[in-house]
Amino acid sequence: MESKLYQNTKKTPPRSSKKFMNFPMVPRVVFGKGSFNQLGDILMPKRVHSEAPFIFLVDDVFENSGLERKIPLIFNDQIIFVSAEEEPKTYQVDALVNKIKKDFSEPPSGIVGIGGGTLLDLAKAVSILLTNSGCAADYQGWDLVGKPSIYHVGIPTISGTGAEVSRTTVLLGPERKLGINSDYTTFDQVVLDPELLNNVPKDQWFYTGMDCFIHCIESLNGTYLNAFSQSYGEKALELCKEVYLGDLSESESREKLMMASWHGGMSIAYSQVGVAHAMSYGLGFVLGVKHGMGNCLVFQHLSEFYPEGVCLFNRMKEKHGIEFPTGVCAGLTDAELDTMISIALSLEPLWENALGKNWKNIITPGKLKAIYKKI
Amino acid sequence: MESKLYQNTKKTPPRSSKKFMNFPMVPRVVFGKGSFNQLGDILMPKRVHSEAPFIFLVDDVFENSGLERKIPLIFNDQIIFVSAEEEPKTYQVDALVNKIKKDFSEPPSGIVGIGGGTLLDLAKAVSILLTNSGCAADYQGWDLVGKPSIYHVGIPTISGTGAEVSRTTVLLGPERKLGINSDYTTFDQVVLDPELLNNVPKDQWFYTGMDCFIHCIESLNGTYLNAFSQSYGEKALELCKEVYLGDLSESESREKLMMASWHGGMSIAYSQVGVAHAMSYGLGFVLGVKHGMGNCLVFQHLSEFYPEGVCLFNRMKEKHGIEFPTGVCAGLTDAELDTMISIALSLEPLWENALGKNWKNIITPGKLKAIYKKI
Repeated sequence: MESKLYQNTKKTPPRSSKKFMNFPMVPRVVFGKGSFNQLGDILMPKRVHSEAPFIFLVDDVFENSGLERKIPLIFNDQIIFVSAEEEPKTYQVDALVNKIKKDFSEPPSGIVGIGGGTLLDLAKAVSILLTNSGCAADYQGWDLVGKPSIYHVGIPTISGTGAEVSRTTVLLGPERKLGINSDYTTFDQVVLDPELLNNVPKDQWFYTGMDCFIHCIESLNGTYLNAFSQSYGEKALELCKEVYLGDLSESESREKLMMASWHGGMSIAYSQVGVAHAMSYGLGFVLGVKHGMGNCLVFQHLSEFYPEGVCLFNRMKEKHGIEFPTGVCAGLTDAELDTMISIALSLEPLWENALGKNWKNIITPGKLKAIYKKI
Repeated sequence: MESKLYQNTKKTPPRSSKKFMNFPMVPRVVFGKGSFNQLGDILMPKRVHSEAPFIFLVDDVFENSGLERKIPLIFNDQIIFVSAEEEPKTYQVDALVNKIKKDFSEPPSGIVGIGGGTLLDLAKAVSILLTNSGCAADYQGWDLVGKPSIYHVGIPTISGTGAEVSRTTVLLGPERKLGINSDYTTFDQVVLDPELLNNVPKDQWFYTGMDCFIHCIESLNGTYLNAFSQSYGEKALELCKEVYLGDLSESESREKLMMASWHGGMSIAYSQVGVAHAMSYGLGFVLGVKHGMGNCLVFQHLSEFYPEGVCLFNRMKEKHGIEFPTGVCAGLTDAELDTMISIALSLEPLWENALGKNWKNIITPGKLKAIYKKI
């Protein structure tokens, strides 16, 4: 999810000043198999009164599932099922906020997001827009959110994006795909229950986990890195290796992937992603390729920049028999390719992190075109 | 610092129930060389009004130092220098709270602890006792604190204890040495500035760092471990190895030790310490041996329980030419030895974590006496 941290910014984060970010961490976290069962107890003291509901935004794959039945509904709480087939959009956020405002005379006690990165990002954005006027697109950028969001809880059911710990929510807006990066974005509470990862389809498990793997490689090989981000990134990378190349039980594998995503999300606090994410964004913008897969499609061709990372990546892909689509860029016109390239190149902080201040001497439109054509 | 997590508890934490702790994390952290300079900006929005001061509890080794001059005093803020020669005590907390209440007509805006584990623990406890009536000793135990503490900031100047992230503050009380374990104990803000570690004396650097190393070994080899604590403990251990056995620059070494302490503190969230801490507590109670050194004195003789850990530990000790005192227990009477042993054995959760439910079949008073006599 952090992939778009610096994309087409309205306001770019300060890089050259000596001011360090006062990073907002998730203030409460429960970890454990079955910890989802504690959700009712966790929410109870946060209920403002009986007319102020909790709104559960839930991935629609869980409709009529065992998980749905375990959601601790009381009073006038509401479940809203949302498809995660596509990346989350600003208009979706606005529609959800309008629906909640229409359905209830009182502001909700809080928002609970249950799902992967898409659902978690929607929950974060809705909680911001319930207290900040205007539209979601108004807040895409850095630190544009003026008022605290309402209480919001993140419960991942698929791991890798790091959305559960990050201070961004990446949304496709009318003009750009960009995060709402703010101190009020971070969840107030996270519930990490590895059992919720039980039935993730294999492809999704791979692509989402590789989001973590790739942003660790990019962050650890970047020029922005400091010891804080490095320690989290190294641990996340090590856990990814255990999960995708090791010989773990399924239960252990789920637990470790959950922690990889957690630490991987933290590793972006003081660092940045790189070449794969920049190019993946071009791919997503022109072709609508989803984030996790887009990263993979690009990353396989980046051995020039990340030789060891790509080597590991290929081993992981082979071990799990994952087949990537081919010929993805085959039918593109030159104009479309040029759009992709210019979008990728516009993400200057990613390139600077990846290749240093003189990145423009290293990367050229022709080089990017050659890579895209391989995809 | 976590060493005393389960010592002589008034109320023991639930271990057998399936409820997982909803762990309170530090909600704000700044990391970076020179980040201490941002303290004024960080505190400004937390100032209640000009009559509500910030109280800075500072290790007295910094009196008349460059650090003292950088403390951002305004209005009627106050610096109180405190010696860290001895472990923090409940009566010290009460005296500090009384002084603050006497000196100021208004409650402070917050407390800032600057120092090692002792100062950080005092800052945590004072912030609790400023809003909760009675004496510090009333709150030693688990979850006895009823009201939120005032805003408090932790700024470590020596790393290893993990006090900067833990939810305990370990105090020597009139009857026992025990932590105030509560959700309100955790700092609201931590500033991690590796430059503050510049002038730590070598012995103290070793003993405090070994607090982290030893609690990682105990936690990772314990029966209570889960994947959350394991991931933090493994990273902390790896960083300890780099710092104490690797070939880092001084600057890199300070940064990595700071992160080792941070992750090591987090690793205790869902785990527990073990044999060294249990026995060290007996040593501290009878002889007043300080926490970090006490752990080391015991740990060197625990190769039966932690063979790999003790091997690594001995290499670290040799590499840095650290000499431990010998004959520490030589002059003890049998009655004193018995007191040590019974105190150590009373810490049941530590033994259960270390050796499993049947620990009483493995560890005997005679065995402990033999180990103590080697010290």
